[in-house]
Amino acid sequence: MEVDNKFVALKEYVHGQPSESNFEVKTAPLALTLKKGSNQIIVKNFYVSIDPYQINRIKAYSSSHKASGFSTQIGLGERVDAFGVGSVVASVNEEFKEGDLVAGLLNWEEYTVVQPRTILNKITDEFALSYHVGVLGPSGLAAYAGFYEVCKPKNGNTVFVSAASGSVGNLVGQFAKLSGCYVVGCAGNKNKVDLLKEKLGFDEAFNYKEEPDFKLALKRYFPDGIDIYFDNVGGEMLEAAIVNMKPFGRVALCGVISEYTSAGPRAAPNMLDVIYKRINIKGFLAYDYLHIYNEFISTTQDHLRHDRLQVLEDISQGIESVPTAFSGLFRGDNVGKKSVKIGNG
Amino acid sequence: MEVDNKFVALKEYVHGQPSESNFEVKTAPLALTLKKGSNQIIVKNFYVSIDPYQINRIKAYSSSHKASGFSTQIGLGERVDAFGVGSVVASVNEEFKEGDLVAGLLNWEEYTVVQPRTILNKITDEFALSYHVGVLGPSGLAAYAGFYEVCKPKNGNTVFVSAASGSVGNLVGQFAKLSGCYVVGCAGNKNKVDLLKEKLGFDEAFNYKEEPDFKLALKRYFPDGIDIYFDNVGGEMLEAAIVNMKPFGRVALCGVISEYTSAGPRAAPNMLDVIYKRINIKGFLAYDYLHIYNEFISTTQDHLRHDRLQVLEDISQGIESVPTAFSGLFRGDNVGKKSVKIGNG
Repeated sequence: MEVDNKFVALKEYVHGQPSESNFEVKTAPLALTLKKGSNQIIVKNFYVSIDPYQINRIKAYSSSHKASGFSTQIGLGERVDAFGVGSVVASVNEEFKEGDLVAGLLNWEEYTVVQPRTILNKITDEFALSYHVGVLGPSGLAAYAGFYEVCKPKNGNTVFVSAASGSVGNLVGQFAKLSGCYVVGCAGNKNKVDLLKEKLGFDEAFNYKEEPDFKLALKRYFPDGIDIYFDNVGGEMLEAAIVNMKPFGRVALCGVISEYTSAGPRAAPNMLDVIYKRINIKGFLAYDYLHIYNEFISTTQDHLRHDRLQVLEDISQGIESVPTAFSGLFRGDNVGKKSVKIGNG
Repeated sequence: MEVDNKFVALKEYVHGQPSESNFEVKTAPLALTLKKGSNQIIVKNFYVSIDPYQINRIKAYSSSHKASGFSTQIGLGERVDAFGVGSVVASVNEEFKEGDLVAGLLNWEEYTVVQPRTILNKITDEFALSYHVGVLGPSGLAAYAGFYEVCKPKNGNTVFVSAASGSVGNLVGQFAKLSGCYVVGCAGNKNKVDLLKEKLGFDEAFNYKEEPDFKLALKRYFPDGIDIYFDNVGGEMLEAAIVNMKPFGRVALCGVISEYTSAGPRAAPNMLDVIYKRINIKGFLAYDYLHIYNEFISTTQDHLRHDRLQVLEDISQGIESVPTAFSGLFRGDNVGKKSVKIGNG
């Protein structure tokens, strides 16, 4: 059997802000049969994840981090890989059989041929499939590991989260509240700010676009200083947070979205403050914390089963919507975890 | 009995580079008698320490770190406190008696009235008194704690030290060699570079003033990347080090001398690199590591007794030389630990 597989290909590298024109949706025939011994699997995709960090593999501006292997540049015309959820439709790998629901590294496309040794887990729980690209997927792990392992929160700590209505930020804030912290988030419009306070239980939230001086804004919300800054944006907000950190404060660098789309001026935190206040700034990737994956999953599932976590999802429909969904991340369009639903999952 | 006590007073706050004219040496009579119950001590000073960080208390440019308490601004006309070594000449404190040799927090002056609860330790070992402001004093503790506790070295790690011929840097490099690391230092002239390689056993050293591109220089010395950067300078060198760090690299921020004398552009490390390479940047102060003071002292004394550590001292003579000694730090005049000898210690 052969299908027409629609996929999103990189048309041109991103300069500055990404837009729909960086991508094109193409179609290629795909035989749903596999060669024995290849250990491959074919997955029919139901949800693919849309994440800001993906820009780092499709932009023209280069950086030394390429050496890390997590951000190899994608070639023009190639497919963009993405975390996703789907169903196995063909398998010559003894670990998976047709009909298995799986979550793992796929592509922005309708069907993905998965090579052996790619991260791919069977879904066996009762939660919505879409949760497995978000709260129970890499975004959830980034929030959980970043907050608990990198920030090392203590009861009563003051916590600031930027991009707080985003896929990771909204969970960090909720984890922080569950840990007895005082939590303030920032976001880019009034609806998001209201959501943080009214639905997610943040103690305070503010619209950064209405703050002429981030340092003063943070001083207002943290008159005694910040213990933990979970940074998703970098840039000027990182500088302002450093100024407002308490001694021995921890900064977890999860993303620097303000710097993804520009090779211009970067954050220049006051390192004298970092010394005198003995601040710890740590970059991390969710994939470094697979050793606590089971703990993350069981804790998070438990929160979900007891309605202690609100799940914020922002789902577009159809593979054709991927370019707009992705570009929209950088316009602040999304509220919560952005993903695209493909097919009938 | 009364003496004429010469002391260094702050004449005007430092703007940009410090110079001799920021200070004046004054004289005030001091009675060498103390009131019972005051628990005070009078110390005749033999050596006072001259350290770059002292500028942060005597400059006009202000920063949020003042909140930490370690960098309260000193008033005009006031004395500048400094670590020092001396002999007790009067005491109404039962822990100290006349003739005790002590090391602790004194001032840039000939005699210091020490208040109770000031850091002050009796010297009971056989080493030169001057060592107690350097290798066995705060500089030594900063190097030891910063390297072992903050950088967490492993055998075979690659280590870069800036201001490597300075009071802290030269010891970090030597500790790193004793720990089986590959060590490269940078300094500001050929004599210092030669000293690092020939006397202190650094694997490589370079003159940063002869390097048009710090990133390329570090790439040359660390083709496979840097595990540990012990930063004494901040600024452009910090940016260059971040680019050259290996995954999971550690950066200990001990000082940012390039930024002490300017309120201008600061280091803007690429935070995307910090994330993808999971770099840890940590500011620290030696005083946070008093809990390992005994370990530091016994290990360092052991190294000294077995000639495993070279002691680099740069000692000026007489209280009048303090302003020049201090200003000289920022011109790169000193080689190793800068101190001023006062009196006959």
